[in-house]
Amino acid sequence: MEADSKSSRDVQSLLLADATTLAGMLAREEISSVELTTVCLQAIEHRNPQLNCYLHIDAGGAIAAAQASDARRAAGVPLSIFDGLTFAVKDNIDVAGMPTSNGLGYGAHAPRADRDAAVVAELRAAGMIPLGKLNMHEIALGATNDNYHWGRCENPLREGYTPGGSSGGSGAAVAAGLCALALGTDTMGSVRIPASYCGVAALKPGRGQWSLDGVTRLSHVLDSVGLLARSGRDLQALWKLPPVSHLPRAEEQAVLSLQTMRFAAMTLDSASDLDQEILTAFAQATSALAGQTASLEARDCIGMDFSGVRRAGLLMCEAEANVTFADELAQGQLFSLQLRKMLRWGAEQPAPALVRAQDTVQAAGEWLAQKLEGVDFLLTPTTPQAAFPFSEPAPVNQANLTSYVNMAGLAATSVPLGVTADGLPFGLQVIARAGDEQRLLAASVALENFLRATSAHTQDLENH
Amino acid sequence: MEADSKSSRDVQSLLLADATTLAGMLAREEISSVELTTVCLQAIEHRNPQLNCYLHIDAGGAIAAAQASDARRAAGVPLSIFDGLTFAVKDNIDVAGMPTSNGLGYGAHAPRADRDAAVVAELRAAGMIPLGKLNMHEIALGATNDNYHWGRCENPLREGYTPGGSSGGSGAAVAAGLCALALGTDTMGSVRIPASYCGVAALKPGRGQWSLDGVTRLSHVLDSVGLLARSGRDLQALWKLPPVSHLPRAEEQAVLSLQTMRFAAMTLDSASDLDQEILTAFAQATSALAGQTASLEARDCIGMDFSGVRRAGLLMCEAEANVTFADELAQGQLFSLQLRKMLRWGAEQPAPALVRAQDTVQAAGEWLAQKLEGVDFLLTPTTPQAAFPFSEPAPVNQANLTSYVNMAGLAATSVPLGVTADGLPFGLQVIARAGDEQRLLAASVALENFLRATSAHTQDLENH
Repeated sequence: MEADSKSSRDVQSLLLADATTLAGMLAREEISSVELTTVCLQAIEHRNPQLNCYLHIDAGGAIAAAQASDARRAAGVPLSIFDGLTFAVKDNIDVAGMPTSNGLGYGAHAPRADRDAAVVAELRAAGMIPLGKLNMHEIALGATNDNYHWGRCENPLREGYTPGGSSGGSGAAVAAGLCALALGTDTMGSVRIPASYCGVAALKPGRGQWSLDGVTRLSHVLDSVGLLARSGRDLQALWKLPPVSHLPRAEEQAVLSLQTMRFAAMTLDSASDLDQEILTAFAQATSALAGQTASLEARDCIGMDFSGVRRAGLLMCEAEANVTFADELAQGQLFSLQLRKMLRWGAEQPAPALVRAQDTVQAAGEWLAQKLEGVDFLLTPTTPQAAFPFSEPAPVNQANLTSYVNMAGLAATSVPLGVTADGLPFGLQVIARAGDEQRLLAASVALENFLRATSAHTQDLENH
Repeated sequence: MEADSKSSRDVQSLLLADATTLAGMLAREEISSVELTTVCLQAIEHRNPQLNCYLHIDAGGAIAAAQASDARRAAGVPLSIFDGLTFAVKDNIDVAGMPTSNGLGYGAHAPRADRDAAVVAELRAAGMIPLGKLNMHEIALGATNDNYHWGRCENPLREGYTPGGSSGGSGAAVAAGLCALALGTDTMGSVRIPASYCGVAALKPGRGQWSLDGVTRLSHVLDSVGLLARSGRDLQALWKLPPVSHLPRAEEQAVLSLQTMRFAAMTLDSASDLDQEILTAFAQATSALAGQTASLEARDCIGMDFSGVRRAGLLMCEAEANVTFADELAQGQLFSLQLRKMLRWGAEQPAPALVRAQDTVQAAGEWLAQKLEGVDFLLTPTTPQAAFPFSEPAPVNQANLTSYVNMAGLAATSVPLGVTADGLPFGLQVIARAGDEQRLLAASVALENFLRATSAHTQDLENH
């Protein structure tokens, strides 16, 4: 196989190319889907024992699907520009014939899904190839992916460090090049946090924009299915892939100028408990943006009761999980002791406490939605910190900047913002109205390009 | 005063004229607002001791407002076609300067509102005159208006009978001619049930259509503010009254033909526990409609778990009321023992029980919304029975046909459908999509006219 003859460096650059680049190679017949898929499966075989991002791999199904894709290309009838590219799926989203463990202790006996979740079916209808199921924080309630049953998922950028969560396997697999794209879920920040910690891009669509059919519920109101990719333009290309064969080429995507867009940046001070490096990088990025956009306003975060809102969101999840997982809880051994305790607490709260939590969450959402008044996009850092070692306790504020977006039902992306002195990445969150995802993605691509250029420029200056 | 010299029969026909008729008389200067308001206040003085529909009356404020209205008319600048007409307000909706008791045991010490609820402000801005506050079921949780603190509100059509609830005072005041229009609230059917029992018309707008600002919450998701009137055309005229002085005349309202409208009728069998007279009248009305409409389909009610859905809706209210009335509950003596027990039960349910109730309510709403597919309007009886004596226990199914509409967030009206052999009225419910209120009201007027004509025709046949 040609891929076997490639140098290790060639293979690595192939794995880490973004989906748009790979789609171009497929379109130009520089590589076949079978070759790409084989390289990916070999890399999984090689790296997954250490990274532990895949819980289930369907190598045979993937190769068969790749052969079918290559046949469509040869016949001139690809299903989309992404026909023949791989994707991997968080283990709380159904893929027909594959197990769905929700990160619980099923071992080899997780129930298998009869049919694809709606979002998986859409990617499959675009010719994409599901490789397998990905590690996650137990039932998606937590942001370290230190999974009691399945083991830790490692951050590909540093051993012993969390990839974030709850979609940690999705962040790690995309960052390590073990799939072209990954699906995750995001209830309080669970696709954006791993994107920030792993240095990749993520989209959480607005409420109701992507079907949750076939996705295990954590919180009815807060849940979104989301997408992780190695570039913002991949997210943009995938958003509503045309289902027919008259396809725009990836290169033809609209690249909007920042000059057409109105931004606001959240003013965050030390009270918001962000790492100083992230505060500085965010301030530098937003001041560099001044004059580059149609407008750039400031929004304070007065009135943000981070801890009260966090507890309210958690109670909603803990109460609802008692209903979603009623059967599984009855089986007992499927849950870690820690999660069982959390859910018992949720079960013991009186109904009016849940009413108060829902009220708090709604008010928090309305608070954030108001910040968008007069602008198109609101900027914040994605996470208050970069990835941390599993040996340290998880900071309570991991989802502080992301969870409000779910409460408001808004859409958001995370794109790489910078790297700590210690060499770990962190993200920029771009927030937009639900339904405005297309412009959000165009803005995210423009920002990604701008930040890359600015950072290169800064490095040039420092080198002089 | 001229009104004093009118015969009792003239006064009665003036009181029972609909708002549109009264507006025409004002426009033609056949009567003044001061005269109309005075007649109304005298009738209240005369009848309220028995009916007990008003808990608070602002006679002085009303006369002053009527004088101001007459001055605007004289100057040729009325604020709307309804400028100078009276309205009364359920006692869970704020009117600036008036008490808001929510039907609790405040006696003379209910807190007074600082400002008008949004919907009251709108009527006032249209020149309408608030007469006072109306009796209601305690905190709007119940449908008989047998109020422990304030006493029973009587059905004006028969002594000792319930006017329905929870907006019983609104239904009674409109039916007795003690205001031109009344505001109520509707969480499971609380404006439509009194309309059905009292033989008047009511509108419950769709979710989000009328502001709940200044309205005491019972259930965040299910609450609507609504309107009761003596005719469907009054509801139609009031819906979004033009706030400027270029006003259409009442007679110019669009009267759409039933031939342009697509209907479905709910098929209800004996299992749905409706009184036979109502089932028969509903079947006769819908079969008379055949051929008169663009289409007339049937919808079954398979899958309607009336009792499960009722319990779910009640739990939502009971849990939320613990939060809304937390301060009042701490005072103790404001609540009847029965209500206190209900709320204690709500406070003791675990949070996951509320999650299950919310899920049940959402599913019930989705179930009903699907019934509208392919048609514009869905028809059901409003209530399973006509008004009943206070001496009998309240049937548990009072809100069975109305509560699903709140769960779905849809809009609905009730217009008079028929009269039992015993002489008590019952309503026809017309359900439409939220946002489609204008067409819903046109359809309701057309149906009201059609039913009136059909019933006259039937009576003619019976007389031969």
